[in-house]
Amino acid sequence: VNELLGVLCYGYLVSFDRLASDARLAPDLERRAVLCGIAAGELAHHERLVARLKELGADPEAAMAPFVAALDDFHDSTKPRSWLEGLVKVVVGDGIVTDFYREVADFLPEPDRSLVQDILRDTRRAEFATAQVRAAIEADPELSGPLALWARRLVGEAISQAQRVAAERDALTELVLAGSGDLMGVAELIKRVTAGHSDRMRQLGLNN
Amino acid sequence: VNELLGVLCYGYLVSFDRLASDARLAPDLERRAVLCGIAAGELAHHERLVARLKELGADPEAAMAPFVAALDDFHDSTKPRSWLEGLVKVVVGDGIVTDFYREVADFLPEPDRSLVQDILRDTRRAEFATAQVRAAIEADPELSGPLALWARRLVGEAISQAQRVAAERDALTELVLAGSGDLMGVAELIKRVTAGHSDRMRQLGLNN
Repeated sequence: VNELLGVLCYGYLVSFDRLASDARLAPDLERRAVLCGIAAGELAHHERLVARLKELGADPEAAMAPFVAALDDFHDSTKPRSWLEGLVKVVVGDGIVTDFYREVADFLPEPDRSLVQDILRDTRRAEFATAQVRAAIEADPELSGPLALWARRLVGEAISQAQRVAAERDALTELVLAGSGDLMGVAELIKRVTAGHSDRMRQLGLNN
Repeated sequence: VNELLGVLCYGYLVSFDRLASDARLAPDLERRAVLCGIAAGELAHHERLVARLKELGADPEAAMAPFVAALDDFHDSTKPRSWLEGLVKVVVGDGIVTDFYREVADFLPEPDRSLVQDILRDTRRAEFATAQVRAAIEADPELSGPLALWARRLVGEAISQAQRVAAERDALTELVLAGSGDLMGVAELIKRVTAGHSDRMRQLGLNN
């Protein structure tokens, strides 16, 4: 449980940081402030997870530490160069994280199951980002090719960092394995996450 | 009024942005999250000011636009290179802004006077930053010299950007001038802001 809360906890802190900085790419101050507000929401999730880790008698710092390098590397290797790349990253990253951890949270005892699922229920980020990207692609269909490529790169980097975490963090891996039943169960989980990703790509107007 | 709300409004948006990025300099994840939380507070101030500008029938984007370059330049020229430099900037910048605009807000009609004063009453940033810097200097008095120099640079940059805004924005300048009575009144206001700055330097343990 601590490892799961730890990875999410650091994930939201670094997400706050990256969204705040991606917000500078916004075409106007209003949309910049919207992305900043979304960032502030991530920080609130981080704070709830810190509070829960403390309740469990864990040191939040220690719980997050194992995931700092992998998450920082993911974000360093996927720095958006434009407002739309930043928003595609929100949709893609957020979607995969949400789908994956929502299933993993099912394997948790209460009250952590509800806590994680409640946090993952926050879909404002993805809704705003999907609407923006969709409108931009409708206005200029040429954007679709490069953004689809970008989305594939995001998925590639996410998978490679997830493998790294899985290889290093036995407790988290065992939780997923035990919860899924067996390796076949894990494969099914990955299949569902992949299907969710394809859905989101369609919603964005990125069909490739 | 719109110009005053506009400069504060963009000031808090850019402050959110810079604090979020300075937070990476924190020595641990706990203090990083505290600075991120302070940043989120700045964003909340920004949002209140946007709401008020809209109420007044102003376009928030247009109200902020004249101040973007000066505030961005100020922050670009005063990027902290360490956690402590970041905190000294919070104390110094925040203190000057608060003292100055609190007086200027006195010249505003209601309800804007109360709105601005309520926002400026938020002193969590400065309290946290002061305590951190003070403790660091008590532990290592050698830090005091370089940080005092840094603080002087901050004041210098703030003054030069404030002069630029004053030269360009007649309405804001006239508000200050009319409120203060005359140039002598403005000089007195600057004197009070300077005295407040000296007090804060003493509180930080920076006596030079």
